[in-house]
Amino acid sequence: MVFGNLGETSGTGVGFTRNPANGDKEFYGEFLMNAQGEDVVAGIRTPIHISELHKLMPDVYDQLRDITTRLENHYRDMQDFEFTIQEGRLYMLQTRNGKRTGRAAVRVAIDMVNEKLIKPEEAIFRVEANQLYDFLVPKLDESVEGIEVIATGLPASPGAAVGQIVFTANDAVTFAGTSAQKKPVILVRAETTPEDIHGMEVAAGILTSRGGMTSHAAVVTRGMGKCCIVGAGDIQVDEKKKEMRVGSLTLREGDWISIDGTTGRVIKDKLNTVAASPDDPDLKTIMGWAEPFRTMGVRANADIPRDAIQARAFGAEGIGLCRTEHMFFAEDRIAHMRAMIMARTVDQRKAALDKLLPMQRADFEGVFRAMDGFPVTIRLLDPPLHEFLPRREELMVEITRLELTDAKSPKLKELHEVLRRVEELHELNPMLGFRGCRLGISYPEISEMQCRAIFEAAANVAKEGVKVIPEIMIPLVGMVKEMANQGAIVRRVAAQVFKEKGAEVKYLVGTMIELPRACTVADEIAVEAEFFSFGTNDLTQTAYGFSRDDISKFLPSYIERGILKSDPFATLDQEGVGQLMHMAVDKGRKGRANVKLGICGEHGGDPASVEFCHKIGLNYVSCSPFRVLTARLAAAQAAASDKLKVEGGRTK
Amino acid sequence: MVFGNLGETSGTGVGFTRNPANGDKEFYGEFLMNAQGEDVVAGIRTPIHISELHKLMPDVYDQLRDITTRLENHYRDMQDFEFTIQEGRLYMLQTRNGKRTGRAAVRVAIDMVNEKLIKPEEAIFRVEANQLYDFLVPKLDESVEGIEVIATGLPASPGAAVGQIVFTANDAVTFAGTSAQKKPVILVRAETTPEDIHGMEVAAGILTSRGGMTSHAAVVTRGMGKCCIVGAGDIQVDEKKKEMRVGSLTLREGDWISIDGTTGRVIKDKLNTVAASPDDPDLKTIMGWAEPFRTMGVRANADIPRDAIQARAFGAEGIGLCRTEHMFFAEDRIAHMRAMIMARTVDQRKAALDKLLPMQRADFEGVFRAMDGFPVTIRLLDPPLHEFLPRREELMVEITRLELTDAKSPKLKELHEVLRRVEELHELNPMLGFRGCRLGISYPEISEMQCRAIFEAAANVAKEGVKVIPEIMIPLVGMVKEMANQGAIVRRVAAQVFKEKGAEVKYLVGTMIELPRACTVADEIAVEAEFFSFGTNDLTQTAYGFSRDDISKFLPSYIERGILKSDPFATLDQEGVGQLMHMAVDKGRKGRANVKLGICGEHGGDPASVEFCHKIGLNYVSCSPFRVLTARLAAAQAAASDKLKVEGGRTK
Repeated sequence: MVFGNLGETSGTGVGFTRNPANGDKEFYGEFLMNAQGEDVVAGIRTPIHISELHKLMPDVYDQLRDITTRLENHYRDMQDFEFTIQEGRLYMLQTRNGKRTGRAAVRVAIDMVNEKLIKPEEAIFRVEANQLYDFLVPKLDESVEGIEVIATGLPASPGAAVGQIVFTANDAVTFAGTSAQKKPVILVRAETTPEDIHGMEVAAGILTSRGGMTSHAAVVTRGMGKCCIVGAGDIQVDEKKKEMRVGSLTLREGDWISIDGTTGRVIKDKLNTVAASPDDPDLKTIMGWAEPFRTMGVRANADIPRDAIQARAFGAEGIGLCRTEHMFFAEDRIAHMRAMIMARTVDQRKAALDKLLPMQRADFEGVFRAMDGFPVTIRLLDPPLHEFLPRREELMVEITRLELTDAKSPKLKELHEVLRRVEELHELNPMLGFRGCRLGISYPEISEMQCRAIFEAAANVAKEGVKVIPEIMIPLVGMVKEMANQGAIVRRVAAQVFKEKGAEVKYLVGTMIELPRACTVADEIAVEAEFFSFGTNDLTQTAYGFSRDDISKFLPSYIERGILKSDPFATLDQEGVGQLMHMAVDKGRKGRANVKLGICGEHGGDPASVEFCHKIGLNYVSCSPFRVLTARLAAAQAAASDKLKVEGGRTK
Repeated sequence: MVFGNLGETSGTGVGFTRNPANGDKEFYGEFLMNAQGEDVVAGIRTPIHISELHKLMPDVYDQLRDITTRLENHYRDMQDFEFTIQEGRLYMLQTRNGKRTGRAAVRVAIDMVNEKLIKPEEAIFRVEANQLYDFLVPKLDESVEGIEVIATGLPASPGAAVGQIVFTANDAVTFAGTSAQKKPVILVRAETTPEDIHGMEVAAGILTSRGGMTSHAAVVTRGMGKCCIVGAGDIQVDEKKKEMRVGSLTLREGDWISIDGTTGRVIKDKLNTVAASPDDPDLKTIMGWAEPFRTMGVRANADIPRDAIQARAFGAEGIGLCRTEHMFFAEDRIAHMRAMIMARTVDQRKAALDKLLPMQRADFEGVFRAMDGFPVTIRLLDPPLHEFLPRREELMVEITRLELTDAKSPKLKELHEVLRRVEELHELNPMLGFRGCRLGISYPEISEMQCRAIFEAAANVAKEGVKVIPEIMIPLVGMVKEMANQGAIVRRVAAQVFKEKGAEVKYLVGTMIELPRACTVADEIAVEAEFFSFGTNDLTQTAYGFSRDDISKFLPSYIERGILKSDPFATLDQEGVGQLMHMAVDKGRKGRANVKLGICGEHGGDPASVEFCHKIGLNYVSCSPFRVLTARLAAAQAAASDKLKVEGGRTK
């Protein structure tokens, strides 16, 4: 805006017909008078609040209210307008539908229904599904002055977090201290790995300099409902010196920062946060209007009972992905897991697996109880085994150090032994390596143990009166024979356990569809698989040949040059990856007419992707608990849109 | 065979109507008489040569010859028969077409045409295309006694090699010595990398304990026409101790072994080799019959003039893949390449590229001259940049060592600097990382330099009167915008250079099709690309989600359990990967009716895959020089088979 010198009763203003922050029906505006205006603070051209205008020029103010009310009625939406007053005369310069927060969007939509400006079926489209996040997360209180944004990354998991920075997972645990005297910490890493889980669990928020929207940090934190910023490339993380550098600024362990996972901003120093209210009555109203339209189910990705309970609270109708491997990283289990991996014989491996069995069974019992009456899709072991062992380069460095400083250390032999196994398992491209069903096929005893844990848990919990609906999912299938091999193990173990327990539980056996080849032979695979769940993270990786962990190397350059519009791991590539999915849906139904179809990739919580899933006829979407609300609204919008189109077509 | 006690003129025998080793028209057989037979050496039941039978029982012998000749005439193929003689009376037990070597197959086929038993168009099917290897490679002389096979791996590159074992590329160079006093060495590694190239070049053969048929060692040695065995999993390679262990046997640096790349056998000690004769007149005869049928072109993958010349000698009609990166590993170039990678600014990068330009130009001039009159497909830089830098873990170990032993070493700073860049470039899954056209899009100056080198070379060589047909190939395209971005650079630089040189050369711009997504949007890509070349190595990797370098972890288990019939990197998966290719062919022709279609993956030299390429209508296949003969025959067989089927259809 350029302000001219317009005289005492002249100036320019902007305003909203309702409050864009909270949706209150509150006429709001600011007006900047010319330099001679009475209310201008000396030397600073500060706009005056619209209420002051009311006092100064009541007629003009009334006229403005009248015009903007008519504009809102005409457009049937909250207006963001611009006006000018020249020597006491009002001119409207512009009007448009106003941008607003999610809370405001919901409030405005409901008010307008009450005001009979719009109908409920219109109101549900007035809220962007992603905006429902606003109801779930705390926010930074930015009403203070002098906020210093030091870097910006990708807003990976919404919300706000304030804490002291630490640079390793162990430091996070130490720093966070006992529950009695807990200190909030922000874990700052170049990138996170499964070994950082314990640190991530105690941190208030996570900040990484590398990684994209589906990096480990992003996926895990969204699952945790924890604020996270990833790929803040301007930040250099020096884990060794325990400091981070941004330009000339250096922050050290213990310094305070505030991070806003909704916008990706990293802010120096400590801000306050404003709490969230997920039980908002407005939210219930809008969902009440939307939900009857919805035809797709919405499930959550949850690995542990706590997450499952949370997901149900958000309206999840089942678990679409329960990752069994996350259970193995717990402190009391990793030793048995490592023993299993280090085993040289089937017997040694079985002995280690026997120790893991009761733990897995207890996990599944907890998840089944939490999801009483709803299906739970459990994926058999998926990641490459070396993820459970110490890192190769760290072992090599440690061995070199010991050889030079303490050559007689008994630890050397042990380290060499571990390194030998790590070397054996070492892969140049682990994402394309010895993982998924390749593990269960090579080591059937692993699948057997996991199936036994699932079915024993199911039988036990069913006896308590809980309705258990297990769906066992085989990961990374590319050939029907892989599915047949693992499916046979599942069915054999189920029959054994049911016989032992004298109880039967209905279950399904199916597969992730996450490889292009699986899409091309989906008709064959469906003969063996009762359900498909699209693993669109991996399918995107293999279709594009993009490693989701490494894409940050060239993604910014691609977006800058317009080659990609958005991160394909955040929003599904409907043209390419979607084409493969379409092929798999068509072929899958050819192979088995009633094959159950779902999605459990991160895309399951992205509104545009949810709409696509509706279009190609999936039965359900599954996403992180904190995305369930969004997915529910997006699915409802997609179905409503379909229905209204058809009805529109009928009336013509 | 079980031999009964049948009396003096009784016994059992086997024979061939022609020599299965060389195809000579030579009746051959062995006969084992009963224990009382005169010619049995005391205590040892050694069969007698058929000529002895002629002396012992001339009537029976004549009858046998007569019967087997009639059998051969009946089946019109060399027979492998079994017979028994009971008290002077001949009984035929079995007959079947006899297995034979490639040389024998060719000889027998030609002889039978001369004998009017078969027609030339049948003769060309009597030779398995893969068997033509026999004409190109030396063999181990196994006529000596006491051969000890100590391990077996995958027969990655045919032929035989005998030499002293070494365990590093540098040791190979040192051991092999100067050309005046050259010693044959076998380079034994866990697996090879581009950094081993200098050692592989001087070695007589390569043996690795890891990797599959398309591992670095396998691909490079086939390109070199050098004997190689990979994935000999029973061997433990200890680079540090400079020894290899197989069971209780330990072989140390300098010990002799002999390896047979045609069968995958590793033999202890030194055998002699028997030389090959590629200019065989029989070979020319059979190819002369086959070639007129062929409709697909056959090109070779060759990076340097020497390979191009060799490929032409084998009948290659162009270069289907010239990998520019192999040129950068040469000792005089790697330093500039590293400077280019370490560059922090575009200007620094351009300065390093300027030094590489004349070297690249000279390379291309050489290749163009060698392929006078034939097209040369040059692929722009493809591998991730960190492949040109020292390895991360080695740097980390070296830094740890120096810090503990020589903390003031000035080398430490330099190593830290390199490590910093290596860390920046480090990727969890480099195959899915910052490589292919992603490099040229992020650093357009790299593509510009390479295009300038190509077009300057083309213009220079054209002025000499050489007919130059460059085809510039953009690697790893998944989206049409990538192709458009790089295509524009190629065309811009071409126009600039032609203007500067005052000479124009016709060229094509196209792309590798090696990502599933590229197949799904091939119609769009073809609008920008004048040719497609299927990179089926990468397409197999991404379609299956199999890393070709890591597949040996589970491939044996998959083959053992019947989940895979063969290594999909050796023989094309027609059902899955082939379906994606089919889609790309259909869509590609929709986007550009005359789009030129080829294949340059390793499958281009596999007969079954060549047949598939013929079926889906590719214009050419391209393979390693030493596979060109095989590809030519396979392509001719596929076309002849088509033609004969059609003609058969007509006559009915």
